[in-house]
Amino acid sequence: MASAYSELAAIHAGLHAWRHIDAMMAWDRDVMMPPKGNEARASAMAALRALVHRGRSDPRIPALLQRAEGEALDEAELANLREMTRDWRDAATVPVTLVEARSLAVARCEHAWRSQRPANDWNGFRPNFEAVLDLSRREAACLAEATGLSPYDALLDRFEPGMTSERLDRIFGELASWLPDLVARVRDRQRSESPIRPLGPFPIAAQRALCRSLMQLLGFDFAAGRLDESAHPFTGGVPEDVRVTTRYVEGDFLPAVAGTIHETGHARYAQGLPPAWRGQPAGTARSFGIHESQSLAFEMQLGRSPAFMDLLAPLVSEHLGPQPAFAAENLHRLLTRVSPGPIRVDADELTYPLHIIIRYEIERALIGGDIEAADVPHIWDEKMARLLCVDTRGNHREGCMQDIHWAMGSYGYFPSYALGAMYAAQWFATMRRTIPALDEHIARGEFEPLFGWLERNVWSQGSLHETDALVRNATGEGLDPAHYRRHLQRRYLDGDHRGNEA
Amino acid sequence: MASAYSELAAIHAGLHAWRHIDAMMAWDRDVMMPPKGNEARASAMAALRALVHRGRSDPRIPALLQRAEGEALDEAELANLREMTRDWRDAATVPVTLVEARSLAVARCEHAWRSQRPANDWNGFRPNFEAVLDLSRREAACLAEATGLSPYDALLDRFEPGMTSERLDRIFGELASWLPDLVARVRDRQRSESPIRPLGPFPIAAQRALCRSLMQLLGFDFAAGRLDESAHPFTGGVPEDVRVTTRYVEGDFLPAVAGTIHETGHARYAQGLPPAWRGQPAGTARSFGIHESQSLAFEMQLGRSPAFMDLLAPLVSEHLGPQPAFAAENLHRLLTRVSPGPIRVDADELTYPLHIIIRYEIERALIGGDIEAADVPHIWDEKMARLLCVDTRGNHREGCMQDIHWAMGSYGYFPSYALGAMYAAQWFATMRRTIPALDEHIARGEFEPLFGWLERNVWSQGSLHETDALVRNATGEGLDPAHYRRHLQRRYLDGDHRGNEA
Repeated sequence: MASAYSELAAIHAGLHAWRHIDAMMAWDRDVMMPPKGNEARASAMAALRALVHRGRSDPRIPALLQRAEGEALDEAELANLREMTRDWRDAATVPVTLVEARSLAVARCEHAWRSQRPANDWNGFRPNFEAVLDLSRREAACLAEATGLSPYDALLDRFEPGMTSERLDRIFGELASWLPDLVARVRDRQRSESPIRPLGPFPIAAQRALCRSLMQLLGFDFAAGRLDESAHPFTGGVPEDVRVTTRYVEGDFLPAVAGTIHETGHARYAQGLPPAWRGQPAGTARSFGIHESQSLAFEMQLGRSPAFMDLLAPLVSEHLGPQPAFAAENLHRLLTRVSPGPIRVDADELTYPLHIIIRYEIERALIGGDIEAADVPHIWDEKMARLLCVDTRGNHREGCMQDIHWAMGSYGYFPSYALGAMYAAQWFATMRRTIPALDEHIARGEFEPLFGWLERNVWSQGSLHETDALVRNATGEGLDPAHYRRHLQRRYLDGDHRGNEA
Repeated sequence: MASAYSELAAIHAGLHAWRHIDAMMAWDRDVMMPPKGNEARASAMAALRALVHRGRSDPRIPALLQRAEGEALDEAELANLREMTRDWRDAATVPVTLVEARSLAVARCEHAWRSQRPANDWNGFRPNFEAVLDLSRREAACLAEATGLSPYDALLDRFEPGMTSERLDRIFGELASWLPDLVARVRDRQRSESPIRPLGPFPIAAQRALCRSLMQLLGFDFAAGRLDESAHPFTGGVPEDVRVTTRYVEGDFLPAVAGTIHETGHARYAQGLPPAWRGQPAGTARSFGIHESQSLAFEMQLGRSPAFMDLLAPLVSEHLGPQPAFAAENLHRLLTRVSPGPIRVDADELTYPLHIIIRYEIERALIGGDIEAADVPHIWDEKMARLLCVDTRGNHREGCMQDIHWAMGSYGYFPSYALGAMYAAQWFATMRRTIPALDEHIARGEFEPLFGWLERNVWSQGSLHETDALVRNATGEGLDPAHYRRHLQRRYLDGDHRGNEA
């Protein structure tokens, strides 16, 4: 008789084919599909997702999981079994009727949001949002019962396994205590600086070639992936065939550059996942926060460092023609300019986490039942004013209606963005401590020390360790937001990292 | 209780989602996928195809088909039931072990052929080819037993339902009796003509824009499809989202132009299939020959007519810059130049069917057991010399190893190409008889009479009628190759169609 573990592994290997296909179909929908293909595509993908759901919630699984617990497994197999159990719980805990009701409510809410947001129509949005919230609370209650976690923590656990709101309260509370003050000091200081603005337009074809060169520089394997364009940049596909997208505007090239570097971080994580565990849960990315730690390690830690500017400046001039604004120091000033605004996705590195704290506090209270949908706008306005000094009153479009996450019922997702920034700072703090002259290497385009470290410590680890163990193995300690604080203070107040570190 | 017919319809609607996905994954593989994605893609697609096969050979189907025969169905539902029966027979007749053995043999043969063909390595190819042939014969025997047809006819029936080798013997025998002589007379006559050669290079971007304009002119709906590039041009996707590919070479623009017009014929058929029957067998294209009749109606009947040259000439000049070679009359000469050669896919309109006759005669004898794989090269050489006056001795690369079809085990496919040309001639003969001043309309870019006729008589009919009935409904008679002969004689000897027809 086959071992229960090997039967489970076969079930997951089978699911892997459908996930490969789903990833490609989603990429095609967002990048290639003409508009009239939408309805047929939606129905084909719904059938595929139902197939995935049936596979993940196969009724043989619970008995197999129980039997496998008693089998002789090595450490990696035990890790895989742990992730299989998580996957089963995630797929099978919530009753199908609730999953379906939630899908319908989400589809309605999301579809209407696309026109209600530009129309600033909070009153139109609210009833749909309430329906999604209600079903998300019920889903959270199911998950809470199965896991023993609080309802919000049970949702959080899907994106960031092991993380709790108690810990987030501490981390984000501390952050909120010093970051607004740092923002104010940095803005004061930057008032006297005026970076030279690049003179556009920048032809899309030239930006495309620039972004491709950047990805090549950053070690993206174009034999195992592509760069294309979509309305909302993302990284999809499968490890053997990673699909990266970006978007271009003629008036400015820095959004495409920063976005491409960001997605390349996600992409190298995907390309570096352990081939020996392909198709198994242990071979997948550890969490949304760890994924974001790679994109932010690339975009923020590396991509805005003075050393990297020595590489970026000549590439930009080569593709867009020389300009005084393309000097390395000026590019650094442009990319570290701090300017609080209402929109999360447009935020700079320093104010970005404040946007996350606001969302975290509101969604935790919503799922916990402490506040209702109707309370969101005034709480939003109050927090934006307090943490970011930005007035969003009456401006729902650029306020609480700006993100798609809540309309999609994705509660517990936002914290990953800020955690990713903290993990990224911790990776770089460790590398700067243990790799001699890291920034000199970077400035010379010698990326092996940097990427080799990420590959050994993060990419190749997949989900073979829980997040805390992954972080400890890589850095010798659990998540410590102090590294993040030091990074921000150094970059924005003390003069950024530039070789010969103490 | 649901009717048996409606249960069958539900099974097919379910299969439709997997076919949609399969079409898109195949398109992606051939157009977008980077090389390292190949292995994972092959395994995901194999899983998907196994799913399709399981659905098509669902053991509930035979009893449902039998029960449905006794239900009250209208004419269209009866047609759908007929096609469901065909689909079941096609999927379930051949034992799974044989299907799997054949897939393996084909994969091995096809893979090796890709390097053996350029190396002219017949001896290396032969054993793989023999294995595929052996399994194809066994497959044909199974299908023959289930259908009561001869083994070769049973294979033919998959591509061209209702067609028989007896009928093909007559059609192709007659063709072979006059076509070589016509080729010789036309070549004699063309010796005194020397069309002006276009002066390249022709930048790919300009050719791309030209092909896009041509597709727009020919009524392709870009909101329901795309034009991309691949090594071997094809039309794929689904009716709501048709994916056309072409290929460009800098030295000549006519191959891309002719190829794009050809694929646009396939594409408009796909876009014009009856929406009411979407997802059901009755809603699919009638046969490979009828599909080819659309691409050849576009490429040959329309796309090389003098009237169409009045539209093509200014488009070419607009996109590639004016040249004496782009005059309408000169383009017509270039596109109707006859020049026998060894390669089927490079053949002109006049010699192309002779390539098909050679393949038909050989594959029929191979499946019938009259000849063996080892006999193919010398039979090939003899037929090429006799029908086309081309010497292929020792040149297997440009001889019997040039096509992928036999390596893939696709016996019975080749005749569709020549049948398509004959159907296309019959459509145009009927239109010229029944639509006043068809060529004047074409020359003015008024395509409604032409496309309206094809849409009413072919595209919107899907598989609602058997092929003979489709042809009779459209033209008042069954397939009559005399129309094809008259078309070739008129175009190549008497002066091509140019308005004011008798």
